[in-house]
Amino acid sequence: MERKIQVGIIGATGMVGQNYLRLLENHPWFEVTYLAASPNSAGKTYEEAVKGRWHMTGDIPASCRNIIVQDASLVEKAIGKCRIVFSAVEMDKKSIMALEESYAAAGFAVVSNNSAHRHTPDVPMMAPEINPEHLDIIPQQRKQRGWKNGMLIVKPNCSIQSYLLPVYALIKAGYPVQKMILTTLQAVSGAGYPGPASIDLIDNIVPYIGGEEEKSEIEPLKIFGRIQGNQIVPASDIKISAHCNRVPVSDGHTACVSLQFGTKKPAMDEILSIWRNFSGVPQELHLPSAPVPPVIYRDELDRPQPRKDRNAGNGMAVTVGRLRPCNVFDIRFTGLHHNTVRGAAGGAILSAELIVAKGLV
Amino acid sequence: MERKIQVGIIGATGMVGQNYLRLLENHPWFEVTYLAASPNSAGKTYEEAVKGRWHMTGDIPASCRNIIVQDASLVEKAIGKCRIVFSAVEMDKKSIMALEESYAAAGFAVVSNNSAHRHTPDVPMMAPEINPEHLDIIPQQRKQRGWKNGMLIVKPNCSIQSYLLPVYALIKAGYPVQKMILTTLQAVSGAGYPGPASIDLIDNIVPYIGGEEEKSEIEPLKIFGRIQGNQIVPASDIKISAHCNRVPVSDGHTACVSLQFGTKKPAMDEILSIWRNFSGVPQELHLPSAPVPPVIYRDELDRPQPRKDRNAGNGMAVTVGRLRPCNVFDIRFTGLHHNTVRGAAGGAILSAELIVAKGLV
Amino acid sequence: MERKIQVGIIGATGMVGQNYLRLLENHPWFEVTYLAASPNSAGKTYEEAVKGRWHMTGDIPASCRNIIVQDASLVEKAIGKCRIVFSAVEMDKKSIMALEESYAAAGFAVVSNNSAHRHTPDVPMMAPEINPEHLDIIPQQRKQRGWKNGMLIVKPNCSIQSYLLPVYALIKAGYPVQKMILTTLQAVSGAGYPGPASIDLIDNIVPYIGGEEEKSEIEPLKIFGRIQGNQIVPASDIKISAHCNRVPVSDGHTACVSLQFGTKKPAMDEILSIWRNFSGVPQELHLPSAPVPPVIYRDELDRPQPRKDRNAGNGMAVTVGRLRPCNVFDIRFTGLHHNTVRGAAGGAILSAELIVAKGLV
Amino acid sequence: MERKIQVGIIGATGMVGQNYLRLLENHPWFEVTYLAASPNSAGKTYEEAVKGRWHMTGDIPASCRNIIVQDASLVEKAIGKCRIVFSAVEMDKKSIMALEESYAAAGFAVVSNNSAHRHTPDVPMMAPEINPEHLDIIPQQRKQRGWKNGMLIVKPNCSIQSYLLPVYALIKAGYPVQKMILTTLQAVSGAGYPGPASIDLIDNIVPYIGGEEEKSEIEPLKIFGRIQGNQIVPASDIKISAHCNRVPVSDGHTACVSLQFGTKKPAMDEILSIWRNFSGVPQELHLPSAPVPPVIYRDELDRPQPRKDRNAGNGMAVTVGRLRPCNVFDIRFTGLHHNTVRGAAGGAILSAELIVAKGLV
Repeated sequence: MERKIQVGIIGATGMVGQNYLRLLENHPWFEVTYLAASPNSAGKTYEEAVKGRWHMTGDIPASCRNIIVQDASLVEKAIGKCRIVFSAVEMDKKSIMALEESYAAAGFAVVSNNSAHRHTPDVPMMAPEINPEHLDIIPQQRKQRGWKNGMLIVKPNCSIQSYLLPVYALIKAGYPVQKMILTTLQAVSGAGYPGPASIDLIDNIVPYIGGEEEKSEIEPLKIFGRIQGNQIVPASDIKISAHCNRVPVSDGHTACVSLQFGTKKPAMDEILSIWRNFSGVPQELHLPSAPVPPVIYRDELDRPQPRKDRNAGNGMAVTVGRLRPCNVFDIRFTGLHHNTVRGAAGGAILSAELIVAKGLV
Repeated sequence: MERKIQVGIIGATGMVGQNYLRLLENHPWFEVTYLAASPNSAGKTYEEAVKGRWHMTGDIPASCRNIIVQDASLVEKAIGKCRIVFSAVEMDKKSIMALEESYAAAGFAVVSNNSAHRHTPDVPMMAPEINPEHLDIIPQQRKQRGWKNGMLIVKPNCSIQSYLLPVYALIKAGYPVQKMILTTLQAVSGAGYPGPASIDLIDNIVPYIGGEEEKSEIEPLKIFGRIQGNQIVPASDIKISAHCNRVPVSDGHTACVSLQFGTKKPAMDEILSIWRNFSGVPQELHLPSAPVPPVIYRDELDRPQPRKDRNAGNGMAVTVGRLRPCNVFDIRFTGLHHNTVRGAAGGAILSAELIVAKGLV
Repeated sequence: MERKIQVGIIGATGMVGQNYLRLLENHPWFEVTYLAASPNSAGKTYEEAVKGRWHMTGDIPASCRNIIVQDASLVEKAIGKCRIVFSAVEMDKKSIMALEESYAAAGFAVVSNNSAHRHTPDVPMMAPEINPEHLDIIPQQRKQRGWKNGMLIVKPNCSIQSYLLPVYALIKAGYPVQKMILTTLQAVSGAGYPGPASIDLIDNIVPYIGGEEEKSEIEPLKIFGRIQGNQIVPASDIKISAHCNRVPVSDGHTACVSLQFGTKKPAMDEILSIWRNFSGVPQELHLPSAPVPPVIYRDELDRPQPRKDRNAGNGMAVTVGRLRPCNVFDIRFTGLHHNTVRGAAGGAILSAELIVAKGLV
Repeated sequence: MERKIQVGIIGATGMVGQNYLRLLENHPWFEVTYLAASPNSAGKTYEEAVKGRWHMTGDIPASCRNIIVQDASLVEKAIGKCRIVFSAVEMDKKSIMALEESYAAAGFAVVSNNSAHRHTPDVPMMAPEINPEHLDIIPQQRKQRGWKNGMLIVKPNCSIQSYLLPVYALIKAGYPVQKMILTTLQAVSGAGYPGPASIDLIDNIVPYIGGEEEKSEIEPLKIFGRIQGNQIVPASDIKISAHCNRVPVSDGHTACVSLQFGTKKPAMDEILSIWRNFSGVPQELHLPSAPVPPVIYRDELDRPQPRKDRNAGNGMAVTVGRLRPCNVFDIRFTGLHHNTVRGAAGGAILSAELIVAKGLV
């Protein structure tokens, strides 16, 4: 790639926005050239705008420190500054939908972390190793919305990656899944900043995360869905039940999964072989953020663990362990992924790489 | 009760033994008069014997500090000193079985925390609100083993109380359960002392506890079983699958449960009513350690939580919350109990109170 | 005491206010009859007013659940409802000063947790075992302010009790202290709710608490001060330097203290004897909340510890350990107290008991 | 460097040994070719020897997995296999002293993590930025012990680096320090594996670490000492008092330091300038593990923090913050370093690089 593609971030000062900056530092394809946020931040350098609320472990990337933050609502300010816009805005659903659409209408490829458009029928919810073919809807999206070069894609909720990729690998190998009951143990960084109060998670866990169970049960259906005409129709042949818990872990969501296949059931060693050999379009296209391998199975009895496994594949791989027969369903296992990398900004960046590689930008 | 019943603890210096001392302090019926442990401790005062390894939050009960610790293997030393012996010994399975039997043969009522005898067919595994009628096997136990006044009962593993009592309440109300898939988030105190290393549970969870899933799946079957002839035959009409995790919580095991009924299914409000009105034999007999009510349902969306709910009913109640329909099975909920009280020494003390109230001691 | 004294809480819905309710439940002398907060809460029952933000481990005391919350700024609403008002309001300093004064002017004995009036010269900052004679200023306070029966006292910051009581015991025994350098490890509950974000204290400590070091260095001087004319003049013969840190502990502030005496220096065993025999006016008067003994010295090398020692004396005792010579100053030791009991509401309740026993109410 | 220098690790299977392997992976100068441990491990591949007890976050370096572990007591097995031996053995003091000496006698340059030889007068205790000139004693060490090419150096305890480097920078700039009182908040990894029990550090801190305060007070004196004749004579003009605490942090020791200068006292801005411009021999020699800069001062009020700052300079830099006047001494500040990198194996590797650069190997 001769020259880097210029990208922007709207909602750049929040926690997700900060993660984008962190992960895009030294990206081989992308270069951050546009940062926008609320009117409060507009006109300040990025460094001034996040003063006292930069929450990443490392420092602000040097190349972004002095970028003047724009008012995200003034779409025209972005024109000429970038081609792809990562959306990390925090507003009410309607406002987000409108804002993201206005960027797309202005010709930008919008890749959103937000849940607002996740169930809009012509907007693909991308899990790049699973449903790269959902990008085929973009021409129709553009057509019916009158967008010339713009487009809009979203990424799913951070809670589902720890199991969706290994489950998909089995489906793809010819073993349809009928039922899944799973329990997540989710890290606090998934709640943004400040997130849960320390007093609530010292010597404690909280067995509830608002809206998380519903997302965990519904979003996979769209990802497993098919394009029919001008919309993506969710899958209807799989039932998911999720129990979502908050635990005192900084990063890394864990899921304990019990799974029932249809009539065709793989043997245990075949499952291991499927996971260990799994590869997707991002790997085939050698996308810079694509982990190789995307699914790592660990033989140790007590893995995966958040602190030891969250950074596998630079935080983009899913680590699986404890595959064993289920006393009630067919199999059970434990999955883990890094919720602010694979589960959030990293997953969105991988999706952006995919649309570049597919020639959509 | 005019005079207190004298009780002893074998394995008194370990973590479970210390919990017995703590919970028996000021007990209205029982008085600790005999403490025994390994030959290393024998001949020392209890205070000397646990010097540097007393791990309870409060101090050693004053009445026990100066009791001379006996060698637990010398059963004759206990004769005349107590009527009930709580067993908290840590040895290999065979030695524990033999030792507990020798105390029973010598005329003591042995109440064991250990797993060694849990699946011995004529030894009841007591969950006093659930299977008090299993004590009816004691006459046969005595007869076939040639024990005159002695007897042996055990308590189940600490991982199962958070859901077994609420599930039993539903079964008792006429709604048989067919399938259960559950995930536990277990406290470190369940592993004794020292238990898990701090480095393994800072910013981390461990998705594995050796042997715990098997116990969680098999023990409820015996508790739900029936006496047939001279043995307790486990139930066979319920299937359980358990995922057991260790989390950075000091005390309090949490379980996320999905549950499938048979053809008869209760409505949500009926379930709440069943739980709120549930009462068992220990409550009817006004046993001193029996929590009233035994099951507490909390309406708050984010309860039960270990730090807030583990001490409900002096650590003897089970707290339940988040009852809602399950997307795959019929219902799901979260349960919680105090693992070193209800789940260990407290549960055993309640069982001892039951055998006293039933006239077996 | 024939009939209980009626007390009120202003700022009753906040974290400190909730602690007052918790600690006043079943108080032998006091009965909560008046609860006030911001206009938002006014007119609701207390239960409604704190719905979703009751953060105590136990439930709302039954006797307070249905009290109608008043608007704290309408002092006249309190008249006839109570005699003592505990102030836990959260506003700007000026407003707090004015509000507390208006309650005192209306005839109430105001006992405040807030820092606003801590350095007002005629307002005693009470540490009941240390400076009970500071109450002698009340007649002058009333006179110069024109208050008939009203009065105003405050309690010091929660960070200082873990060492101030043991240090005072030495001073009182004839060993003036010249210099103190200390480091605190403070619990998150000291910051109210929500307090520090969980993400900031998982696998982490924060070496800064805004304003805390200054309070820790200045407040002891007033407590050790003397009444001269119509004001309390701070001591000037002791210098304190404090490093304050936030650590992932729920309750219980720890302090590591190095201390330099004047020319008179006690031997180590004399210090232990002084601490073990220390008693103050609250103990002599048998005040209901006065811990006996007020200072507990533990011989174990690794004590005091927050989880094991914070509840000593029902959270009102100070636990000390690790007394040893200091390589630079004379001695060093570690102190610990429960920050939301002795360090906050509990300390204020003890002060209120003192003014009752002294006949000021 | 044309070919890498071969190095060995004795005590390779323990926690410190594992850290050496981790930090030496891909080292530009060194290549691990010899691994030795107890007889139990001898004859196994390294992978087999650490099975079930590899505690690093990443996997065993591929280049070491199949090295056959030797019996560390058989020094002759090392001959021809390496030039430098890192000692991480865990035995009694006498045995360690003898073993390390026998490796040195056999011609190896021994760099030890262990405390056994720290106060041997002709063995330098290296803090490479502070006392590189202590290596000048090596010729005399060799002469008086009859060692031809062998030598022995040790590294200091892990608790002192967070403040020793910044303090030394001030001394070197012409501001001798007379007194220091400090409190450490130390990570659990400093205690090896398993280290503190989880139950002891959940919602808790432990105000005691055996032997740590003494080391923190005595070791700096030798590091600040001078060679006189054939021994290193400790400094005697500085007094240190240390309070050492264990906190629930995985990696990263924090120290809160109050410091008294002699008559010459630097201004605050001069101190900042001294720290920001500080550089040592390791930096001048461009040693591969030398952090540039070695001391990082952070302006944020709430830094340094373990989770955010421990990895600065690849874990080899010391981060300082909160410089301010002390109410009792002259100044105070907070320092932090990574205890298992700069404070242990990383510090030893830097020392080994220094002896190579100095031509001693």
